[in-house]
Amino acid sequence: MKIKFEVKHGAAYTIIAFQAATNLDFGILKELKPPDPVAEEFAHRGLVLSGKGPIWLYGFLVHFYHTTQYIGIHDPRLKGAVVVESHVEGIEPGDLLPL
Amino acid sequence: MKIKFEVKHGAAYTIIAFQAATNLDFGILKELKPPDPVAEEFAHRGLVLSGKGPIWLYGFLVHFYHTTQYIGIHDPRLKGAVVVESHVEGIEPGDLLPL
Repeated sequence: MKIKFEVKHGAAYTIIAFQAATNLDFGILKELKPPDPVAEEFAHRGLVLSGKGPIWLYGFLVHFYHTTQYIGIHDPRLKGAVVVESHVEGIEPGDLLPL
Repeated sequence: MKIKFEVKHGAAYTIIAFQAATNLDFGILKELKPPDPVAEEFAHRGLVLSGKGPIWLYGFLVHFYHTTQYIGIHDPRLKGAVVVESHVEGIEPGDLLPL
């Protein structure tokens, strides 16, 4: 398994934690099947992406999950996730979601 | 200037190269105004993002430019940009755009 996804249910948002092989080839994006973004567990909720991986993997996932209410990217140094996009009132890019 | 954007016109796609301050605060996303994605220079073209910066900045830009034909993320080690999203035939995530 080159990338392993784990889905965790937080109080306000769902967390997708991933572990990627260090020698990950970008061609994997042609076949990558992350957890389905329209599944019940993602509906009407925000999403936090958390994991160590190349920036192109994050870029792919940000687009893949653009139908969720908002997306935050976990930054361990900030002890939270930085919101990068949002479709709901009250949450906007530049907000920090505590983790 | 905490982030400086430079727009370059490649043959097939536009390149946005950015330079971010190393101590960049995530709150900057509340006020960030990258080059307008609906401007003529981005219409009917792909976009490559290139620069050194935090993953949340890339996440913000991937969403900000989602109306472009496709988005690639420059990885200097690959001497190209990895496509992470596309709305056109013939270009798909996992493709490498030579740079």
